[in-house]
Amino acid sequence: MRLRLTPRDTSFFDLLADSASHLVVGANLLSELLGADRAGRKAIAKKLADVEHAADEATHSIMRRLNSTFVTPFDRDDISGLASALDDCMDFMEEAGDLIVLYKLDELPARVSDQIQVLQRCAELTADAMPHLRSMGDLTDYWVEVNSLENQADKIHRKLLAQMFDEIADPIQLMKLKEVVETLELAADAFETVANMVETIALKES
Amino acid sequence: MRLRLTPRDTSFFDLLADSASHLVVGANLLSELLGADRAGRKAIAKKLADVEHAADEATHSIMRRLNSTFVTPFDRDDISGLASALDDCMDFMEEAGDLIVLYKLDELPARVSDQIQVLQRCAELTADAMPHLRSMGDLTDYWVEVNSLENQADKIHRKLLAQMFDEIADPIQLMKLKEVVETLELAADAFETVANMVETIALKES
Amino acid sequence: MRLRLTPRDTSFFDLLADSASHLVVGANLLSELLGADRAGRKAIAKKLADVEHAADEATHSIMRRLNSTFVTPFDRDDISGLASALDDCMDFMEEAGDLIVLYKLDELPARVSDQIQVLQRCAELTADAMPHLRSMGDLTDYWVEVNSLENQADKIHRKLLAQMFDEIADPIQLMKLKEVVETLELAADAFETVANMVETIALKES
Repeated sequence: MRLRLTPRDTSFFDLLADSASHLVVGANLLSELLGADRAGRKAIAKKLADVEHAADEATHSIMRRLNSTFVTPFDRDDISGLASALDDCMDFMEEAGDLIVLYKLDELPARVSDQIQVLQRCAELTADAMPHLRSMGDLTDYWVEVNSLENQADKIHRKLLAQMFDEIADPIQLMKLKEVVETLELAADAFETVANMVETIALKES
Repeated sequence: MRLRLTPRDTSFFDLLADSASHLVVGANLLSELLGADRAGRKAIAKKLADVEHAADEATHSIMRRLNSTFVTPFDRDDISGLASALDDCMDFMEEAGDLIVLYKLDELPARVSDQIQVLQRCAELTADAMPHLRSMGDLTDYWVEVNSLENQADKIHRKLLAQMFDEIADPIQLMKLKEVVETLELAADAFETVANMVETIALKES
Repeated sequence: MRLRLTPRDTSFFDLLADSASHLVVGANLLSELLGADRAGRKAIAKKLADVEHAADEATHSIMRRLNSTFVTPFDRDDISGLASALDDCMDFMEEAGDLIVLYKLDELPARVSDQIQVLQRCAELTADAMPHLRSMGDLTDYWVEVNSLENQADKIHRKLLAQMFDEIADPIQLMKLKEVVETLELAADAFETVANMVETIALKES
């Protein structure tokens, strides 16, 4: 039997996967929130805030474990960077949901739902990718697909802006909508950042 | 007598502490500016710009010394990263002060002063923490407290947004205020980034 | 004859220089776009999108080569970081051009052209600097000059904001212009980020 003298702490993979799994729940809640009426939205935004809180806890678990672990499966910096990039995705999704409620935006353009669909797909891909960090296999497809989704999000975002400025005459309404739409775009960017970090880690380890 | 062949340059700690001390002065000036009348504000904004300039100088001193020093107390990247993160805190505070003057915002909502109070507390904690980098002790409390202050800043920010959109009918006034309020929120985020970097450095060195 | 057993892949320098050369073309197109009429602008924005696409390809080439190269001339992280920072410069310039067309902004304040001139100069300096990464010589001037250009950009940006809020009464027009002006400012910031990264790399290698 061959001894491994410095067993690498594999539970980081589980913690990152756990953190990413919150993103799927969050993106789905955001989609649900969009379809609900004003009362329903408030309740869903509350749930979204709870998921964001749980995701925060997951991030802190990762940081605490980094603190107490001598050998990590890959660079400490990369693990903490990835954990906080995952956290950013959730933060922007939660913020977007909260703004919709805060600004009492009863009606939103149809393309906002396209933005959220892209986020749902990004969240699923990200959650599916995390367990593959263990073996560093099958990650190129994930990276390519999230980058292409971010391009798609960018196009939707610009069309939405043009449409909003064409159709909405009330500047205050426009300001509110613009902030929601931009926060959703930031969430898509954040998913791309996660994918780029995963790619960089995969490069190093290959 | 025992020789240290590669004495680590401890003056980096003094330079980082010096850089952080400007943040305390800056945050206090911002608070003063808020309480002043239009003429007073202009003079204080000038002082704030001077402090920002001094902070810039402090950042450049750190970068120059990095350039000429062979052995550094911790990673070169971490020192330069931390120096520029400290610089960001100052930049956003100075920008917020400048925007208040630029936009001639005579009256600001009371919650803006709450935002600035959070920044003052963040600046004090950051300045107190820097000297502890030398021994890497007592830094967890700092990190936890700044993270909690950032959460508080985030809540104040969202309440402010809701309030402003409810109470202010003039869209141009709203745009001006929103920019000030968002710049202050970015300053709070920047303090959190500093704290997270310190935490990461502490993890590495522990 | 002396053997180099691990030849460092110098083509990364060519790839980074290639990536930076797109920035010069992009900044010049942006300047051209500003001077054109509405029909001309649409055609130039299309060209700008093509350059942005070519820059994307250049970034991906760098990433792919990182993937397949065992020994790199400097840190993998630094190469990929620099490649994506160069990409950001292009993204913001392309976005600004697209917004001008999207928002049908027939007339823009004169200072917008000052902003773009700064970007043109930043792009030239950046393209000139990249080949010097090979020898790590002559880079301080570049860094100092880009930092000073970014300060200049910041001043133009603030004066523009004050002027726009003074002169433009239509809040929707103001929102459109503000977004263009801010995107141009983000492009200037992105060039500064590239310069700071180059400085950090130079520090490490010196």
